[in-house]
Amino acid sequence: MEILERARRHEADGRDIIHMEIGEPDFPTPPAIVAAAQHHLAEGCHLGYTPAGGLPALRQALSNYYGERSGRAVDPRRIFLTPGASGALSLVLGLLVDPGDELLLADPGYPCYPNFIRLAGGSPRTLAVDSRTGFNLTPSQIAAAWTSSTRGILLASPSNPTGTVMPRSTFEAVIQTVGDRTGYVISDEIYHGLEYGEAALSALAISDEAFVINSFSKYFGMTGWRLGWAVVPEWAVEAAERLAQNLFISAPTLSQYAALAAFSDENREELERRRLAFSERREVLLQGLAGLGFGLSARADGAFYVYADSSGFAPDSEVFARELLDQAGVAVTPGTDFGLHGALSHVRFAYTASIPRIHLALERIRHFLQA
Amino acid sequence: MEILERARRHEADGRDIIHMEIGEPDFPTPPAIVAAAQHHLAEGCHLGYTPAGGLPALRQALSNYYGERSGRAVDPRRIFLTPGASGALSLVLGLLVDPGDELLLADPGYPCYPNFIRLAGGSPRTLAVDSRTGFNLTPSQIAAAWTSSTRGILLASPSNPTGTVMPRSTFEAVIQTVGDRTGYVISDEIYHGLEYGEAALSALAISDEAFVINSFSKYFGMTGWRLGWAVVPEWAVEAAERLAQNLFISAPTLSQYAALAAFSDENREELERRRLAFSERREVLLQGLAGLGFGLSARADGAFYVYADSSGFAPDSEVFARELLDQAGVAVTPGTDFGLHGALSHVRFAYTASIPRIHLALERIRHFLQA
Repeated sequence: MEILERARRHEADGRDIIHMEIGEPDFPTPPAIVAAAQHHLAEGCHLGYTPAGGLPALRQALSNYYGERSGRAVDPRRIFLTPGASGALSLVLGLLVDPGDELLLADPGYPCYPNFIRLAGGSPRTLAVDSRTGFNLTPSQIAAAWTSSTRGILLASPSNPTGTVMPRSTFEAVIQTVGDRTGYVISDEIYHGLEYGEAALSALAISDEAFVINSFSKYFGMTGWRLGWAVVPEWAVEAAERLAQNLFISAPTLSQYAALAAFSDENREELERRRLAFSERREVLLQGLAGLGFGLSARADGAFYVYADSSGFAPDSEVFARELLDQAGVAVTPGTDFGLHGALSHVRFAYTASIPRIHLALERIRHFLQA
Repeated sequence: MEILERARRHEADGRDIIHMEIGEPDFPTPPAIVAAAQHHLAEGCHLGYTPAGGLPALRQALSNYYGERSGRAVDPRRIFLTPGASGALSLVLGLLVDPGDELLLADPGYPCYPNFIRLAGGSPRTLAVDSRTGFNLTPSQIAAAWTSSTRGILLASPSNPTGTVMPRSTFEAVIQTVGDRTGYVISDEIYHGLEYGEAALSALAISDEAFVINSFSKYFGMTGWRLGWAVVPEWAVEAAERLAQNLFISAPTLSQYAALAAFSDENREELERRRLAFSERREVLLQGLAGLGFGLSARADGAFYVYADSSGFAPDSEVFARELLDQAGVAVTPGTDFGLHGALSHVRFAYTASIPRIHLALERIRHFLQA
């Protein structure tokens, strides 16, 4: 956040800044979704609360989506529409975490996770991961860290900040390891759909007992619409219903009606075009960074992030990011935003900028490194 | 909630049910607000995240609104747009409540309060109130209940379920009492604007140290848009900014742009027409209930609720509400939804139905009571 504010100040001074620090797609909301919202408003349709779990038609559409992606049906009653993935995290952690409970999670990881866990009264326990395991938690690591206070794990694949995807075999073994200890697996799948190698696996394709967090923000291009969802096991449906009613009454209504259009053939084609655009940017960025000498030992196969080792250029990623911004006008996020482990030796590049801008950024970085 | 589900089942069976159990205005979102959203979509404007605190223009509009209503300016930086009042409650309780902290609140009251407090790791401590104090907490009651674990109070004026408004002298004395104990006042003002006697006072008109919860849902007719706000004291601005960023990233973007139109003269006139319509319904309902013999000893001067004593007809409000629904097709909420104190002897009527429907409900209740 400090980098973003600093970048805005530079822009206010008239400088051109290339934003590779922002975790928000630069594509606007797809036209079919905007058109659905316009239609809903023009027809004077319902804008009051929806049922706490969401519009039945949208829960069904998501159920079908799971069937299509993983071949495994998910009962629509298990799907809860929420105000963004943030709401889904609040819901799931509110359900599972009691004071004193511990959850395991990867370091580096999404910086809000520990705060959400603490707000629910629990204790986040981060486990160091690095490129040797694709920045993924491993079964043996989980087994070794498990204590009597541990209630489960919270993982993300594709991961923010690393863009890495957990392979099926690891995912299965992780779920098995947690299940053996009667713990919970909370799988944040907010970057699903944005994959450039093998498709990321939903935890639901492995286990009906997983808790899943997802959102229309990233792949579906609906950040400001604040619409996410949680999937809970059958036994948690009633409690989730009550908690959703308490926590947020319902997710935004117009966003839900608009999201019904997200699954049309027309929109799916648009999303595929965007995924391909991300894929091309990724190639350009990875090749460029490798050519400049950044360390790229983990495969960044998903999301829109590359987590690059910058220790060859500077011992402190915060200093590196600040100087890169001030001197070259390229904004990236230092690893220290995502944890402690290897944090000083990494920076995150988001390819939420166009290919010409990415080329320009690479050019600027080259000059900066040569200076 | 049980009554609502039961009512829906009757409707599915083809019966006509008069809904006086629903805490949502039956008016649609005002046309000026819908038109602003349509315009925003048609112009292809920004639909990504807003700053965590909300659109600067909307924070300024709310600041002006406070100046106008209470004659006391509120720095826009202290105002945080949230996903509904629910988000504002999460934000404020997340800021203030640590594990073991106790908050005082009135019984009867909004049933979600205790759950929000528990989710934040705190302990709700409800204090019995009744019609003799207009269902308001009193300074002496607060002073007597205060312990070393007490961190503050959470109050609502106008109140749900009672519709009562806290008089200025009580409000000032309550804030003084809590302030003397260096506690926090959290004032839920979600029904502000819907007053039929004197205007309800904002805690901000008395103290810059109060935490305020409010929303565009009720008075502004925007329930499904999920847009609320919190006002925090100057010293809490930075922490609130960080927590908002963590908890929900930002409030729904289109809802924020639409809400900018809420303060136009045209829309204010529409809102005043609606307030007058509520006022007329209130008169009809109060006179009708009094004529039927319900106890109405507190002045229901705000919101759209009448909390009526039904103990002259039945010893158990749950049984009474169920029979009234099953036999007469009128849905009301039993007092047991709002706490324990006097809960079996009261039911809540929401006048979120038209005057002809309220007349019909009164007629049906008369038949039911005579049967």
